[in-house]
Amino acid sequence: MPNPPPGAIAVIFLSGRSAADPQGYGQAAEAMADAAARMPGYLGIDSARDADGVGITISWWQDETAAIAWRDDPDHARIRDQGRAIWYDWYRVIVATVDRAYGWTRPTDG
Amino acid sequence: MPNPPPGAIAVIFLSGRSAADPQGYGQAAEAMADAAARMPGYLGIDSARDADGVGITISWWQDETAAIAWRDDPDHARIRDQGRAIWYDWYRVIVATVDRAYGWTRPTDG
Repeated sequence: MPNPPPGAIAVIFLSGRSAADPQGYGQAAEAMADAAARMPGYLGIDSARDADGVGITISWWQDETAAIAWRDDPDHARIRDQGRAIWYDWYRVIVATVDRAYGWTRPTDG
Repeated sequence: MPNPPPGAIAVIFLSGRSAADPQGYGQAAEAMADAAARMPGYLGIDSARDADGVGITISWWQDETAAIAWRDDPDHARIRDQGRAIWYDWYRVIVATVDRAYGWTRPTDG
């Protein structure tokens, strides 16, 4: 996704995976991303997970109203409950407001 | 690290690794983390990198002054220049202010 504008909301999800049900986890992670993308004010998602099971997922939202609606979405709540029951040993959620952003891409030759 | 307090600054670094010099990269990533931890106002760091080379690193800072001092730190600048020259195909930096945070840990039996 392009960089979020100032005032956008970052919902930062840090998590440690349990050893349980890797296939079910992959399906749920996909369902979660699809559910987020259907919400008003969704800007995009970035995600990485280490080989040791520590992951960071950041969903980006247009404003606080959109981030709150995502927190309270029933599809989100259902998958979150499964996550606590099965897939995660721990997680942390940090909500932050974007101040500024920039980027760099390697110039191509020719 | 414990969750950052409201008003703390998240410096979110999203990156795509080039195929170059994985050993040198690991040493530089360690040097970068050490340099950050020596800065005033450093709160901690969280990091994850996918098998496909996409990584997310978030450094947490007490306030904007600390985040700016890190941006302008000469050790940081030198390693950043190496990153552009060698290790990354692209990166994005998003600076955001923490609004709220919470966490969950699986209860242990007994």
